[in-house]
Amino acid sequence: MKTVKIGICGLGTVGSGTFNVITRNQAEINARAGCNIEITQVGARRDNPNADTSTTNVTRDIFEVVNNPEIDIVVELIGGTTLAKELILKAIENGKHVVTANKALIAEFGNEIFAQANAKGVSVAYEAAVAGGIPIIRTLREGLSANKIQWLAGIINGTGNFILTEMRDKGRTFEDVLAEAQALGYAEADPTFDVEGIDAAHKLVILASLAFGMPLQFDKVYCEGIADVSPEDVTYATELGYRIKHLGIARHHESGIELRVHPTFIPERRLIANVDGVDNAILVKGDAVGSTMYYGPGAGSEPTASSVIADVVDLARMLSADPENRVPYLGFVAKSLQEHAIMPMGEIETGYYLRLSAVDKPGVLSKVTQILSDQGISIEALIQKEPKDDQVEVPVIVLTNRVKEKLMNEAIGKIEALDTIVGKVVRIRVESLA
Amino acid sequence: MKTVKIGICGLGTVGSGTFNVITRNQAEINARAGCNIEITQVGARRDNPNADTSTTNVTRDIFEVVNNPEIDIVVELIGGTTLAKELILKAIENGKHVVTANKALIAEFGNEIFAQANAKGVSVAYEAAVAGGIPIIRTLREGLSANKIQWLAGIINGTGNFILTEMRDKGRTFEDVLAEAQALGYAEADPTFDVEGIDAAHKLVILASLAFGMPLQFDKVYCEGIADVSPEDVTYATELGYRIKHLGIARHHESGIELRVHPTFIPERRLIANVDGVDNAILVKGDAVGSTMYYGPGAGSEPTASSVIADVVDLARMLSADPENRVPYLGFVAKSLQEHAIMPMGEIETGYYLRLSAVDKPGVLSKVTQILSDQGISIEALIQKEPKDDQVEVPVIVLTNRVKEKLMNEAIGKIEALDTIVGKVVRIRVESLA
Repeated sequence: MKTVKIGICGLGTVGSGTFNVITRNQAEINARAGCNIEITQVGARRDNPNADTSTTNVTRDIFEVVNNPEIDIVVELIGGTTLAKELILKAIENGKHVVTANKALIAEFGNEIFAQANAKGVSVAYEAAVAGGIPIIRTLREGLSANKIQWLAGIINGTGNFILTEMRDKGRTFEDVLAEAQALGYAEADPTFDVEGIDAAHKLVILASLAFGMPLQFDKVYCEGIADVSPEDVTYATELGYRIKHLGIARHHESGIELRVHPTFIPERRLIANVDGVDNAILVKGDAVGSTMYYGPGAGSEPTASSVIADVVDLARMLSADPENRVPYLGFVAKSLQEHAIMPMGEIETGYYLRLSAVDKPGVLSKVTQILSDQGISIEALIQKEPKDDQVEVPVIVLTNRVKEKLMNEAIGKIEALDTIVGKVVRIRVESLA
Repeated sequence: MKTVKIGICGLGTVGSGTFNVITRNQAEINARAGCNIEITQVGARRDNPNADTSTTNVTRDIFEVVNNPEIDIVVELIGGTTLAKELILKAIENGKHVVTANKALIAEFGNEIFAQANAKGVSVAYEAAVAGGIPIIRTLREGLSANKIQWLAGIINGTGNFILTEMRDKGRTFEDVLAEAQALGYAEADPTFDVEGIDAAHKLVILASLAFGMPLQFDKVYCEGIADVSPEDVTYATELGYRIKHLGIARHHESGIELRVHPTFIPERRLIANVDGVDNAILVKGDAVGSTMYYGPGAGSEPTASSVIADVVDLARMLSADPENRVPYLGFVAKSLQEHAIMPMGEIETGYYLRLSAVDKPGVLSKVTQILSDQGISIEALIQKEPKDDQVEVPVIVLTNRVKEKLMNEAIGKIEALDTIVGKVVRIRVESLA
């Protein structure tokens, strides 16, 4: 199996996540890529206690990585726009493919970087630059390529969404929540980029260029932050049936493009209005597909690493695979597909909703709960309604904790055998999806 | 510019949508693909009044399309598993790439079809086979390739979700809503595949294979439909804080894979619990990325066409583009990027939420509404609270219809100039995102 060699520059939050996920999921990742992805070198000014690089070639000089003749792909995770730009341009000059999570760099200098990469015939991939773990770049470049994109609107700054969510849920002030977000590490010590909307503007510019096919133009975004949103406004929004979200909005008109970031009232019944906390979501409206939405973590070590590595796999497939069949049909190369046993339903654990029809006599409920208890099934909620005047049977509703289906089947059999229970027990499985 | 020639077999709902979207969005699609995508031939037993094929080479013999030596890509949209299988295998034998929307065929015969395609060195793409317009196949194969997928759960049958949504919202019975869905054309005349969960099982098998790297095994899915869900259960679910959704669930355990389709109670606070009507959504949990969700239309002519064409573009890029840079950086090939004017904020129309602080005197409100009216701004909602005992100023909240920002700026200037208005007017823009 061919080996594709990568060099990681930067070992901070995203760098350590990338290192750890590649190391941990090596078997899956290689089976998907169809080659052996090797971290050949790491360049970082200092070690990170969250990443065990003891058996890896680590250099303190990040330029050693881009000049390392063995390396096929340089992964830039140092952030900022000065040194990172220099590093990436040098990597391109050296004929290396580049993966970056650097939204500011792509938004502000992407046109120049892409032109250089085109001239050298190498690729620069940047899935992680927008909305962390959500594969929105691929979606716009590939998944929705049939569409005239009409507009898109995104919650694309997790810190801002966390602050607005806390303000709404707990009636807190902007300043109060910001201080907590900084203490928790969600917000930077200098929160300017997050709260003034600059971070969202960087991402919006990239999304708009992908949607409408235009060069990146960061200086044209209208940008308003969330610092002036007051608790009163949050309360009135709720009263009026709205939520306040900090949105990046791009919309196509024949006469031009709307490109704006600002707090926005949106109807509470929209799915995106219910995206809370640090999560991100992007709503995209295409002329053929209609409305689609992409939701997930917009930042964080391993979520962002997920997108960085997706780009590495993409490049590795290109560098190594049969060009006629770059992406394997089922995601993994055919010879890596494994037979897995499919579990019989009896072995599967879920919670259960049960609805019984019971004769309204004393002691019925205790018999039912005894049967469940004997099977090791604990009850999470129970509803027994008063019988109506003309009823002899009353519905009993039971919500149980998770239990193997075969135990529940036995319990249901015993319950149905009680002479105080009428007919079949209705059973619907419960999943928390947490 | 190179021309990639496609032949469309089948001119039903998805076939006509594919034909129409390719025709309508030709410029965008070609700029994304980096080549000229031409519908060289259509094979269909009969014309479709929704697609104007008068200038297209149409044959009544679909096998003429797969045997047409000019054609690079065969798009199979006839459905079913007998003739469609024969057609696709013949196309592969003839060395043609294939795009299909046929979930039953891929779920039941995908292993054989992929093996044949591998042997001949051609591609078979099937984005449209699962969840219509949502690019979930790409997401699992490419976007989340760094992850051990732990589980996924999806609303992957639009008809079923429509029925459950109507039952909940309007207290209707299953039979009643099904009859309406059939009349509206959401459900087939023979609704077995939808209501018994077979359609969802087809899709789940494909998703599970992509997630866990295993051959397709349709015969192993546990499958329960929605016909037995009663209005009472829907009511009790609401009372308990849950929604009933028909889910396909696949989960990885060391001992085996859960693979099941059944009605499921899920907590109402989950985003996916709020996916209503004919829409689909798939929640995917990866070990690195965490929880992500993909939402959109799961069926329909143009939404499904969106995915079919995305596959065509992907293949066309592979067949025509510089192999080192298959997907253009910004989705469109560099020379097709266009400068678009970014609209000044003054020209942008949105609704507005305004919060004013007014001296509690008669006539204040009429002055404010007069100013708005003079600017052509209509009011959608207005809240004026009674002053509290010690207050001399009262908040006034106005929600307006859509208006150009410059007109609103003028109105706000005039309102702030009133001697009965204290301080600045707070203004937050409103978007319906409909």
